[in-house]
Amino acid sequence: MPLTSEQAAEIEKLRADPQPTHRATAPGIEAHLHTAIPVLDHGLVRVVDYMGDDSAIVQAARVSYGAGTKHVQNDAGLIRYLMRHWHSTPFEMCEIKLHVKLPVFVARQWIRHRTANVNEYSARYSILDREFYIPAPENLAAQSEVNNQGRGAVLEGEEAARVLSMLRDDADRAYDHYEAMLSQDGQQGLARELARMNLPANVYTQWYWKVDLHNLFHFLRLRADPHAQYEIRVYADAIGKVVADWVPHAWAAFEDYRMGGAQLSATGLECVKRMLAGEEMTQETSGMSKGEWREFEGVLRDPA
Amino acid sequence: MPLTSEQAAEIEKLRADPQPTHRATAPGIEAHLHTAIPVLDHGLVRVVDYMGDDSAIVQAARVSYGAGTKHVQNDAGLIRYLMRHWHSTPFEMCEIKLHVKLPVFVARQWIRHRTANVNEYSARYSILDREFYIPAPENLAAQSEVNNQGRGAVLEGEEAARVLSMLRDDADRAYDHYEAMLSQDGQQGLARELARMNLPANVYTQWYWKVDLHNLFHFLRLRADPHAQYEIRVYADAIGKVVADWVPHAWAAFEDYRMGGAQLSATGLECVKRMLAGEEMTQETSGMSKGEWREFEGVLRDPA
Amino acid sequence: MPLTSEQAAEIEKLRADPQPTHRATAPGIEAHLHTAIPVLDHGLVRVVDYMGDDSAIVQAARVSYGAGTKHVQNDAGLIRYLMRHWHSTPFEMCEIKLHVKLPVFVARQWIRHRTANVNEYSARYSILDREFYIPAPENLAAQSEVNNQGRGAVLEGEEAARVLSMLRDDADRAYDHYEAMLSQDGQQGLARELARMNLPANVYTQWYWKVDLHNLFHFLRLRADPHAQYEIRVYADAIGKVVADWVPHAWAAFEDYRMGGAQLSATGLECVKRMLAGEEMTQETSGMSKGEWREFEGVLRDPA
Amino acid sequence: MPLTSEQAAEIEKLRADPQPTHRATAPGIEAHLHTAIPVLDHGLVRVVDYMGDDSAIVQAARVSYGAGTKHVQNDAGLIRYLMRHWHSTPFEMCEIKLHVKLPVFVARQWIRHRTANVNEYSARYSILDREFYIPAPENLAAQSEVNNQGRGAVLEGEEAARVLSMLRDDADRAYDHYEAMLSQDGQQGLARELARMNLPANVYTQWYWKVDLHNLFHFLRLRADPHAQYEIRVYADAIGKVVADWVPHAWAAFEDYRMGGAQLSATGLECVKRMLAGEEMTQETSGMSKGEWREFEGVLRDPA
Repeated sequence: MPLTSEQAAEIEKLRADPQPTHRATAPGIEAHLHTAIPVLDHGLVRVVDYMGDDSAIVQAARVSYGAGTKHVQNDAGLIRYLMRHWHSTPFEMCEIKLHVKLPVFVARQWIRHRTANVNEYSARYSILDREFYIPAPENLAAQSEVNNQGRGAVLEGEEAARVLSMLRDDADRAYDHYEAMLSQDGQQGLARELARMNLPANVYTQWYWKVDLHNLFHFLRLRADPHAQYEIRVYADAIGKVVADWVPHAWAAFEDYRMGGAQLSATGLECVKRMLAGEEMTQETSGMSKGEWREFEGVLRDPA
Repeated sequence: MPLTSEQAAEIEKLRADPQPTHRATAPGIEAHLHTAIPVLDHGLVRVVDYMGDDSAIVQAARVSYGAGTKHVQNDAGLIRYLMRHWHSTPFEMCEIKLHVKLPVFVARQWIRHRTANVNEYSARYSILDREFYIPAPENLAAQSEVNNQGRGAVLEGEEAARVLSMLRDDADRAYDHYEAMLSQDGQQGLARELARMNLPANVYTQWYWKVDLHNLFHFLRLRADPHAQYEIRVYADAIGKVVADWVPHAWAAFEDYRMGGAQLSATGLECVKRMLAGEEMTQETSGMSKGEWREFEGVLRDPA
Repeated sequence: MPLTSEQAAEIEKLRADPQPTHRATAPGIEAHLHTAIPVLDHGLVRVVDYMGDDSAIVQAARVSYGAGTKHVQNDAGLIRYLMRHWHSTPFEMCEIKLHVKLPVFVARQWIRHRTANVNEYSARYSILDREFYIPAPENLAAQSEVNNQGRGAVLEGEEAARVLSMLRDDADRAYDHYEAMLSQDGQQGLARELARMNLPANVYTQWYWKVDLHNLFHFLRLRADPHAQYEIRVYADAIGKVVADWVPHAWAAFEDYRMGGAQLSATGLECVKRMLAGEEMTQETSGMSKGEWREFEGVLRDPA
Repeated sequence: MPLTSEQAAEIEKLRADPQPTHRATAPGIEAHLHTAIPVLDHGLVRVVDYMGDDSAIVQAARVSYGAGTKHVQNDAGLIRYLMRHWHSTPFEMCEIKLHVKLPVFVARQWIRHRTANVNEYSARYSILDREFYIPAPENLAAQSEVNNQGRGAVLEGEEAARVLSMLRDDADRAYDHYEAMLSQDGQQGLARELARMNLPANVYTQWYWKVDLHNLFHFLRLRADPHAQYEIRVYADAIGKVVADWVPHAWAAFEDYRMGGAQLSATGLECVKRMLAGEEMTQETSGMSKGEWREFEGVLRDPA
């Protein structure tokens, strides 16, 4: 699935040849358009199109609130206000379309975000390329012992070598057999829609993914989070950088209120109030379970 | 709710001053951008922004089907194929944002289309203008006698005059009282969120409405249909003209397969086959109910 | 729109006559089924059907996490964990269907929650009843002076009397004219779909509304909030009581983490840490705007 | 992923022990509850819960259309009317929850239906079982020569044997290595979220899937279609049988209007009219492309 010469030519033309438009343009994202950002070993994120900018968020909010928004002095302040109060609809007025190439096991997590538009490469229809994700040695992590869905230390030495060789060999053999089953050389050739079932989940697929900014922020909040799996987080990080250039005010508000902020429960909030009043709190006096208390302490702990 | 001088200035600037962009542009819709299309007596549709064009549909389909799409010779043919086979996701890759001013009773039908983004003018927050839809005399229709949700002949003479005067007087009085309740002149003034309840459903509201092309086609299929209420149909018709200029191939396919086509049931299809084989069919021999048979005959009847 | 005798009979039958089922049943909500809970002056909420209970949430989570969930000792703890970490899909496994009668201006706010199923009474098709919401005197609030979309003190004396009489008279006159326009007595009679435009936004409509528990919680978080308009908040409160009986563990987690909790921004969290370390903070040293600081102080202030 | 003894005990209890409920019950589906319907070699469909029945559709429609629906004499007729006129919201008032076990490549097609609720077994969190879909010999089809995404004749002899042995061996080896990488016996053990990438797309996963009847019909229209891939069609067929027992009137209308019916384009409809008027039509005179004409003839051709 590298770009066909036809696709490459089309992209080249789009990049070379700016067109005049009466639409709102966002200079910060224009530079990203049609440029592949490499992710993982064979993956990419490429901005195909976008609609709107920070002003489009403000413009939509002002339609809703009319003259009432005048007392907020500037766009950045209004955008912060909207983010703080979960007024999500103005953010839905911006839209982005991305071309993403990604391993199937990442695609399976990604697609759970339902409010988006997707056109994926069809392995029923066409033949997949011999491209598989093989983790870099520093990402070859052991199972976490405290978190069922987390990672622990990096594998080392022989164990790491063994894992990498299994992943490589199995991918290669699976692809050899995929080709052998498809081949019409001296035989009928298995249907593509069947042959694909032999390919492992680290094979690369690609899609066009189109989403509004509110739902993209929701995606980023979950997938750029330290608890997200590394292999999807690197995509979220790459997209985050694009968004920061596209809608800088919205991005700043998102970082402050969503990525860097914290949600306190009623119990946690009560606990903070008592601590501020000078009381010494413990898990026992907090009313929280051990797990909650551990997470609560994590939130309030000073960064090193 | 006429445009504020600020809004007008912003629009003027956008219209005057084309910006270069590396995005796909659709020349046919550029001319519509920011230009208010009048609808009903005080309503409007204005294109605020768009993403994609006919090529974007084709491009997305080719991502899905890969090399397999090559045998379809041209874009128009591929778009027809996609429409015919209900491959809806490539059409979702185009998006449009409209500013619409419309009576509340129309807005209430419109909002039932859930897959869209909306920012509506808030009468909780701001004060509505004295603008009401009063039907033109030729649209003042009697209740249909055959269809509970349809219209019959146009009202005439004294009855028409009486209806118009009731609508006008009640709207005026409701608005006078709205203002009187809101007034802080010598009194506290009722909350806006309460005072608005006195306004009738023909008062105008406005919103930004953003939707992908697939869902817009679904909207147009239902709302540009002859059975749709006239007051929403005129909006659908105005939008349809914009879409025809924006994505001419997709529009042509939509007209052929959705607007002008027909859905036959298994029973209806069987009936057509027997008619083509020379059999004389009646409601009784068709296996259809009277209502179905009447609709079936309507579909096959020659246009006058 | 009171219940027809047919509807009443149907409901009576359903209430009288329990049926055996192999589905999960939730005893706490069975008692609510088919019983109208009065809201406002003519409104109601009635539970028509439900699917699932607290165990259904746990069951779905255990499908996802498999044996990994065993270390959470009990259902309540697992449900708290899911709520705390925004694992929303298990809550989507419960569903509720409500019959709601409500003023049109409330319905217009309500319908903005898009992820739900709705069948509304059609005033295109049928004739609305003479039922209008007229606020009780204690809910007749003045416009807030600090919040554009809020309420201030209760109106008093002559002003209150004047508002009530305007609302009553205008509603009555609008309905008289609605009937006069529809009448086929000696005239053709205006189409229903047109005549309805004369009715003010406090006229009652009704619908069936079906929603999953995750989206219902989202609705309740926004609409049971003290900043929500009173007239929708009373519906949210009535529904909240039903939910508390239906899924008591999920409700308790929702109250702790959503309704009673607080969202801190990165800036706010940093500020709390410095306060806990003994620093005296002010708006100026906090890095927050005046509005944010006011809200931040509100969150940390002791309840009276 | 066979049922745990705990799950099996829970199901046993639910089946043994009917509970009284005041909800609407649908006797035809009660018998299916909690009973696994086998699909493919290791897959299953199991009805976990449902809401509503044919009467619930009628009830919702009558809320919308009020007294206006009285002229339709019976429930079956009203349901047919709703289906014929694409009045989809009453069908959304029924809901079903299924437990499905299915190969990953089928799950990837299935999940493209976005309007549904899903909880899938997490291979990040838990370990997948050694269960792979291996096609029965009669389903081992060659690539179609006319349709890029279709199947041709069944593979025979040596070629079939070779394919089956590749699929079996690769699955086995992939699973052996999956276990070897996970093993903590004398080594750290690779994280589950990484090890899963070695498993091919015919490995089985499972999920709870909850959907309303309208969206389920949309799923069935596409997936029970003869052009759908066999491996998803067998799931659609199994679900279709359950739906036929659950809501027999809605199912009959769906079969007549959706599954057995046909969509004619404006061009196709014009062509039918001319044929009925006695004209001999050909592809050239029809105005259709070759592909369209072939499909058009297919629709009108007598069944053998």
